[in-house]
Amino acid sequence: MPKKIVTFGEVMMRLQVPGHELLAQANTLQYTFSGTGVNVAAAMGKLGHEGYLVSRIPRNPLGEAALSFLQRLGIRDTYISWGGKYMGMYFLENGFGQRASRVTYTNRLESSFNTAGSFDYDLDSIAEFADVVHFCGIALAMTDKVRETMKTLARRVKEKGGIVCFDCNYRPSLWKGGYDEAKPHYEEMLALADIVMMNEKDAMYILGMKTEKTTKVGQLKELIPSVAKMFHIRTIAGTHREVKQDNIHSLKGFIYQNMTFSFSENMSFSVFDRIGAGDAYTSGILHGELKGLSPEETVRFAAASGILACTIAGDTPMATEEEIRSAMSGVMEDVKR
Amino acid sequence: MPKKIVTFGEVMMRLQVPGHELLAQANTLQYTFSGTGVNVAAAMGKLGHEGYLVSRIPRNPLGEAALSFLQRLGIRDTYISWGGKYMGMYFLENGFGQRASRVTYTNRLESSFNTAGSFDYDLDSIAEFADVVHFCGIALAMTDKVRETMKTLARRVKEKGGIVCFDCNYRPSLWKGGYDEAKPHYEEMLALADIVMMNEKDAMYILGMKTEKTTKVGQLKELIPSVAKMFHIRTIAGTHREVKQDNIHSLKGFIYQNMTFSFSENMSFSVFDRIGAGDAYTSGILHGELKGLSPEETVRFAAASGILACTIAGDTPMATEEEIRSAMSGVMEDVKR
Amino acid sequence: MPKKIVTFGEVMMRLQVPGHELLAQANTLQYTFSGTGVNVAAAMGKLGHEGYLVSRIPRNPLGEAALSFLQRLGIRDTYISWGGKYMGMYFLENGFGQRASRVTYTNRLESSFNTAGSFDYDLDSIAEFADVVHFCGIALAMTDKVRETMKTLARRVKEKGGIVCFDCNYRPSLWKGGYDEAKPHYEEMLALADIVMMNEKDAMYILGMKTEKTTKVGQLKELIPSVAKMFHIRTIAGTHREVKQDNIHSLKGFIYQNMTFSFSENMSFSVFDRIGAGDAYTSGILHGELKGLSPEETVRFAAASGILACTIAGDTPMATEEEIRSAMSGVMEDVKR
Amino acid sequence: MPKKIVTFGEVMMRLQVPGHELLAQANTLQYTFSGTGVNVAAAMGKLGHEGYLVSRIPRNPLGEAALSFLQRLGIRDTYISWGGKYMGMYFLENGFGQRASRVTYTNRLESSFNTAGSFDYDLDSIAEFADVVHFCGIALAMTDKVRETMKTLARRVKEKGGIVCFDCNYRPSLWKGGYDEAKPHYEEMLALADIVMMNEKDAMYILGMKTEKTTKVGQLKELIPSVAKMFHIRTIAGTHREVKQDNIHSLKGFIYQNMTFSFSENMSFSVFDRIGAGDAYTSGILHGELKGLSPEETVRFAAASGILACTIAGDTPMATEEEIRSAMSGVMEDVKR
Amino acid sequence: MPKKIVTFGEVMMRLQVPGHELLAQANTLQYTFSGTGVNVAAAMGKLGHEGYLVSRIPRNPLGEAALSFLQRLGIRDTYISWGGKYMGMYFLENGFGQRASRVTYTNRLESSFNTAGSFDYDLDSIAEFADVVHFCGIALAMTDKVRETMKTLARRVKEKGGIVCFDCNYRPSLWKGGYDEAKPHYEEMLALADIVMMNEKDAMYILGMKTEKTTKVGQLKELIPSVAKMFHIRTIAGTHREVKQDNIHSLKGFIYQNMTFSFSENMSFSVFDRIGAGDAYTSGILHGELKGLSPEETVRFAAASGILACTIAGDTPMATEEEIRSAMSGVMEDVKR
Amino acid sequence: MPKKIVTFGEVMMRLQVPGHELLAQANTLQYTFSGTGVNVAAAMGKLGHEGYLVSRIPRNPLGEAALSFLQRLGIRDTYISWGGKYMGMYFLENGFGQRASRVTYTNRLESSFNTAGSFDYDLDSIAEFADVVHFCGIALAMTDKVRETMKTLARRVKEKGGIVCFDCNYRPSLWKGGYDEAKPHYEEMLALADIVMMNEKDAMYILGMKTEKTTKVGQLKELIPSVAKMFHIRTIAGTHREVKQDNIHSLKGFIYQNMTFSFSENMSFSVFDRIGAGDAYTSGILHGELKGLSPEETVRFAAASGILACTIAGDTPMATEEEIRSAMSGVMEDVKR
Repeated sequence: MPKKIVTFGEVMMRLQVPGHELLAQANTLQYTFSGTGVNVAAAMGKLGHEGYLVSRIPRNPLGEAALSFLQRLGIRDTYISWGGKYMGMYFLENGFGQRASRVTYTNRLESSFNTAGSFDYDLDSIAEFADVVHFCGIALAMTDKVRETMKTLARRVKEKGGIVCFDCNYRPSLWKGGYDEAKPHYEEMLALADIVMMNEKDAMYILGMKTEKTTKVGQLKELIPSVAKMFHIRTIAGTHREVKQDNIHSLKGFIYQNMTFSFSENMSFSVFDRIGAGDAYTSGILHGELKGLSPEETVRFAAASGILACTIAGDTPMATEEEIRSAMSGVMEDVKR
Repeated sequence: MPKKIVTFGEVMMRLQVPGHELLAQANTLQYTFSGTGVNVAAAMGKLGHEGYLVSRIPRNPLGEAALSFLQRLGIRDTYISWGGKYMGMYFLENGFGQRASRVTYTNRLESSFNTAGSFDYDLDSIAEFADVVHFCGIALAMTDKVRETMKTLARRVKEKGGIVCFDCNYRPSLWKGGYDEAKPHYEEMLALADIVMMNEKDAMYILGMKTEKTTKVGQLKELIPSVAKMFHIRTIAGTHREVKQDNIHSLKGFIYQNMTFSFSENMSFSVFDRIGAGDAYTSGILHGELKGLSPEETVRFAAASGILACTIAGDTPMATEEEIRSAMSGVMEDVKR
Repeated sequence: MPKKIVTFGEVMMRLQVPGHELLAQANTLQYTFSGTGVNVAAAMGKLGHEGYLVSRIPRNPLGEAALSFLQRLGIRDTYISWGGKYMGMYFLENGFGQRASRVTYTNRLESSFNTAGSFDYDLDSIAEFADVVHFCGIALAMTDKVRETMKTLARRVKEKGGIVCFDCNYRPSLWKGGYDEAKPHYEEMLALADIVMMNEKDAMYILGMKTEKTTKVGQLKELIPSVAKMFHIRTIAGTHREVKQDNIHSLKGFIYQNMTFSFSENMSFSVFDRIGAGDAYTSGILHGELKGLSPEETVRFAAASGILACTIAGDTPMATEEEIRSAMSGVMEDVKR
Repeated sequence: MPKKIVTFGEVMMRLQVPGHELLAQANTLQYTFSGTGVNVAAAMGKLGHEGYLVSRIPRNPLGEAALSFLQRLGIRDTYISWGGKYMGMYFLENGFGQRASRVTYTNRLESSFNTAGSFDYDLDSIAEFADVVHFCGIALAMTDKVRETMKTLARRVKEKGGIVCFDCNYRPSLWKGGYDEAKPHYEEMLALADIVMMNEKDAMYILGMKTEKTTKVGQLKELIPSVAKMFHIRTIAGTHREVKQDNIHSLKGFIYQNMTFSFSENMSFSVFDRIGAGDAYTSGILHGELKGLSPEETVRFAAASGILACTIAGDTPMATEEEIRSAMSGVMEDVKR
Repeated sequence: MPKKIVTFGEVMMRLQVPGHELLAQANTLQYTFSGTGVNVAAAMGKLGHEGYLVSRIPRNPLGEAALSFLQRLGIRDTYISWGGKYMGMYFLENGFGQRASRVTYTNRLESSFNTAGSFDYDLDSIAEFADVVHFCGIALAMTDKVRETMKTLARRVKEKGGIVCFDCNYRPSLWKGGYDEAKPHYEEMLALADIVMMNEKDAMYILGMKTEKTTKVGQLKELIPSVAKMFHIRTIAGTHREVKQDNIHSLKGFIYQNMTFSFSENMSFSVFDRIGAGDAYTSGILHGELKGLSPEETVRFAAASGILACTIAGDTPMATEEEIRSAMSGVMEDVKR
Repeated sequence: MPKKIVTFGEVMMRLQVPGHELLAQANTLQYTFSGTGVNVAAAMGKLGHEGYLVSRIPRNPLGEAALSFLQRLGIRDTYISWGGKYMGMYFLENGFGQRASRVTYTNRLESSFNTAGSFDYDLDSIAEFADVVHFCGIALAMTDKVRETMKTLARRVKEKGGIVCFDCNYRPSLWKGGYDEAKPHYEEMLALADIVMMNEKDAMYILGMKTEKTTKVGQLKELIPSVAKMFHIRTIAGTHREVKQDNIHSLKGFIYQNMTFSFSENMSFSVFDRIGAGDAYTSGILHGELKGLSPEETVRFAAASGILACTIAGDTPMATEEEIRSAMSGVMEDVKR
């Protein structure tokens, strides 16, 4: 029986300059639709669960295109509501080597999603229905209406016995008031969450926790258990990532559960499309939890999921369980016939 | 000595689905940057004048791309100011035959242009410099700040002896308060204008003028002279257009000057890209005025300019005087080698 | 409450040379997935019903791509089963003017669909669930297994009180034994059908009926009532189509119900993509039936649906009820903003 | 036994802006390789003969690409020699409706072909081998070296009993000295030719012949027989073409043989790619001659060949005999499956 | 005097997703035509020999396109026969980094080639004509008819004094009966062959030979001489290849002749398009043999040919002798002007 | 107050095969317009100065397209004159790994630029106006007319107190008479120059200077000071570059000023588009000089500018001062949002 994974988040139109040109050089764009909620719902569908997205899109050609793309990704549209006037959008220029990729946003605060309130969704049905609900810090940074909907939905799912997953995903540019503005909202969400995606930086910067440790791992090992305890969180997971050189990144995942840390090996890998790797990692953690994998296997599965997502065009993970397990083995395969 | 034509208006990013697919079917877009001010400034440049745009664009990759495209069109960037955060955008799906083209806008009210006030531009220098300044009803429909800038600039150019051109271009969807809201603003602009683009519908609907005539031509002949008299307008010009059948339109232009109407012949023609034909017509009228052509020649030149613009990809007219004069002859040419 | 429309048919991969080049000139192809069942299920979804497809596709990258495309079209995948090894495919070269379009098929008899038997589908659930089931003569021309599944499913839906729709759609190249081979299978399907898509040619050639009439309309008026009577068919509908000149076709639809014919007007229209127009017409008839429209309105709605489908890229109709009703008015619209 | 058709001419690289943009708007080009000799050799190959091209191309990546394209068209490369440094090129911007297509040449006088002399080809082998040799007025306009090669080859083929075909194809922009410069060269070629492509304008302007007739047909009927007599030409054929309106042209072919004219009907048709239609007509005439068709059938075949070439992308005809015969019937076909 | 190299094998249509998207993400494909026989015939042509392909393709737009592509590659079409109904096809999704490329085949057993028997080719002429004939294990895995044609042709070429080359190229997925089914067919071909492409794995798995050695090189050195002796093979050559990391492969070639092994150095290199590298290696070996190069030079030439083929788009090698010799030097060049 | 940088040089049309195909494989090209003068003028504009190009282009669609592209790059067109008939062009096939990129030129000696003499430009105005004028060795290799214009302009700018910059940029294929032919022209330019781009190879080969040193650095340190002294050059700068492996190059810049060398660190970096890196380095040196940066900072700035240019599509540098300073830090950034 597949689990029902419900994600909450904005559908963003991604408008990407093909190849490596700048917007000022090119004249075509490739478009898809993504967002953290989209990515996690789609990834969970690829892993054999049922992925539902809670979002609002406008009743116009852009909204219709968005719905078609979500359906193409295998996302169930039961909880997508029509309304509002605009889609959030971002433009992506691919970097190369020393030149970083650039993302330019349109005014997403006016989007259908960010102008929707809790009455625009049938939160009770969703809470009744969901096995897992997933939220992220990007939505938390948006508007009061969105924050209220998030918290209400998290509370109701929790009441109905569903699992609440929260990905901290702090984006500095989205919080005009900085960490001070963000902190109380994060604390509310952490208090409602069973599974949290974060690392030591979130503890230090958002929650303002202190540590004398100077290494990332030292800080992690000191702070994450405190967070788990403070907010009664069952599972905390996250990654340490590094941009090593031209298109080569490295990633090491961790999971903290039952007062124990498990780590994946530090792996280097080529990156084709960087965006969405975090959501693939989250999906791997959720999949491990839902399938009852050991923490060791879960973190390795999640790390492989994150790495494979970097080899796929677009923001949204496309790998199946079989493909992720093959990547966990680390063997480089020749052409699959 | 080329004349300095200064236009005022928003730079819109046009995102077009290539060919005839819908947004829900395709995955690429072609982009250019246009807008009434852009189109008229570029067209006047092609006709041998110097075209300047007064506008504001954001200091980000989209704004840089916009500037590059304007430069590519030969527009002088002296009066383009950097500031604000967003670009106005519209998505275009090409129709075919019975199926109409569709345009979907993003939230342009938050654009750099629509959030700029008169202090964001050096209006005094512009007024000192301009031989002609061109405004249009689309900008008039935007925000109070934009309206104030328009009126201030029109007034100062007039004071300095420049010619003020105003294209009524009423877009119903942009005026929430309808004709009642629009009327006083239009009256202010008409009172400042030397050359006005409009037809009998604008007189009836925006200005609320009455006529017992039932044909378009009858209404035109009765109302336009009254408008010219009432607002002391030197020249009023415009068109009657019809969608005759699949991709075939017809156009008949008129000009009213010295209490006399002149008309171009009614011509049918194939349409490749409908958008921007009105701006090409306007440019033709302005060119005729600046070159001292007779009203008969001016209206025929403007009509040919409008028709050629429908054969060109994109919103912006690209034809030279020589090409327009060749089209005026009506001869269909084979390949030009 | 939306109706459940279940269609049965093969999913074909359509590989089209872009523009107007030949396969021997080009080096890229655009691909989509279609088929009569796909087209009707998708069109009914666009019209506000729920469209389900009964089909079988292979568990490989082609099958996964097919599923994604069907989902993108809004088709529900509940009754799509995985299995077999191959997809049916066809290559399309667009004609121009005097040069006709060309379709080249791969060996579809070995496809997942054409090698599936009735045990590969859960026919009982489908019969229980469907309000309407749709079949077509192309599937009937395939293999004994496919024919057996068709007839079994038709019978069960009929037993459960659902409506059986059958589109004759005779393709000469698919029946090696010609009309003689086809006739008994068509007779079985006609005997099970409530709504049938056909015209006088099907009556004469497939069923071998005779008439002394020499005009198409004369033959139609004589033969269709006999067919309806003989097979106890509630509704028979179809079209007369003509290729008039370069890219201009004409279409006149008819519907026969309660011993009365209704006709739409004969309309000429520009054709962008000819394939799939028949399925759009069928969807219009089904929609009229399900909504209880009068036969006059139904046939006009279906004709407009068929015409709009010719203005859309790809085989699959994309028009909403609102768009079809607008086309019924016959007014040519300018750009929709 | 297929006939050996040898054509002589420059291989031009055609660089076309895709769709309907101008060079100043686009940033991609599609390229092919063509030229009168290429077109006729390829067309004759499609019609079941063997087409050989006599030309020279540079030993560099452009020349290699040219050779690959010629081979792709089925042209035999036996008589293509390597040498020189440059390829002739032209850029093509497609017109639309009132806006004419534009062709811009690079400096072709320095091309490998135009700098080659008769010693760069094995003219004796070619003359021994060819059943038919084809020349055209474009090559005649080039350089003294090219002219000398043409005349030498024509003379040798004639001596060996082969058929010499000459297409007048006068291009005003290529003759700096105008008709006066061209006349003696044309006279030499006409004196060597068995089959000539021309019409009354060539007689009047190039050969300076006089007539009192004022209609095209009248002039044709008076002058062509004189030309045939004067230069001992077996067959003279040509067309009257008109650009009627947007993308609609009309064509009427004639052939003069045994002191008798035969004409094809005047036909209107849609044009996709205008360039190369004349070469398709020539190929049709040559095919009729080689197959021993009656003049009536030959001229109708050639006209249909010319019309079909206008429906094909690129300069080079691609139609088979079967397709041309189908077009001769004038029936518009629906999709060919 | 160029040698006549005749290859025998299926023409496959390769349909590749451009860039790095999956079939489920993209909507365009790039197509070419290839196959082992195609690749070797084309590569030998590039190396200055004459390459002929023995194959059968259908008389339809796909077959015509295939022929055009083969001609474009410089392959002579003398021995290509028309017939049958289908083309073999495969879809290619490019991998990236950890994600492997995927190949999906259509049902090639029904292709024109795989349904052809020896009477569909003029084997006697071919045998009379060929200096070298090339076969491969992929064709051997197809149908009895194909196998019979292979063996007959090999026998006749041998009788006429031509060289028989056989590339073992065992593909597990193509032999339903596994090595047991394959072995007798391989033994027959080996007994007819003068030059064989294989390595120690083929000896162990196909021929069932035993060795106590545990390293690849040890096994190679023990088994290859036994194979050569057993089947009277003049030359055996092959490679050891490894996928080292993201897009970096390594290759070391060997040749065994006159009871002596020669090896190329083990080289690492970036891979753009992996498919067809083996055929480029084979062509290098054949070229060395035909030119009388020393075994040492031959194996280095073949290895460089294989490496260069990995830098070229498509399956088919495109390098000239000069380019391969430049690559043998191992110097990295900057832009060649 | 921005400085006026005037560059002198030919505008070349760059026609690039997209991706990694050969001209013989592809059928589309991407085009831009570039050239050393274009690149330096555009790069200086990006760095906040005003970039003007002195060049001549033909009054035809190619010339118009060229002008549009130059304007798009932000180049001021005041000193571009219309005239002549042709554009210089080059075709670019991208290499991959072991396979080098290839450039094929058309006959640029007949271009508008190379047939222009000093009377085709208003050299006096330019000399009056320019703060810096930039020349390069490619133009010096062209025609006597071009050389004369170069020298005249250099002399007049010097007289008016402007800075003369000369980039040696010796291209062996352009000087038929080799170093002997080039030497006197180089000497004249060096005698006029204040800033020179060159390295030890230019001193040895063009100027024929001798050294016993065997390392590049040794030769550099011995010869460059002599050159500076001999020709009274204020600043000499240049680079040592190496192609290390597949798409990885290394670069070390030097500057010699006030009898002192400064060097940037030797850096390795991935290369996307190799062409134009030298012009970006030159622009960095000029910017440092104009801004009064220390030699150490200038050479590091120029090196980072050169490296970033290799990450940008096309020949022309696009980086701003901010982006170059970020690259100087050497930190690899993740996505910039």
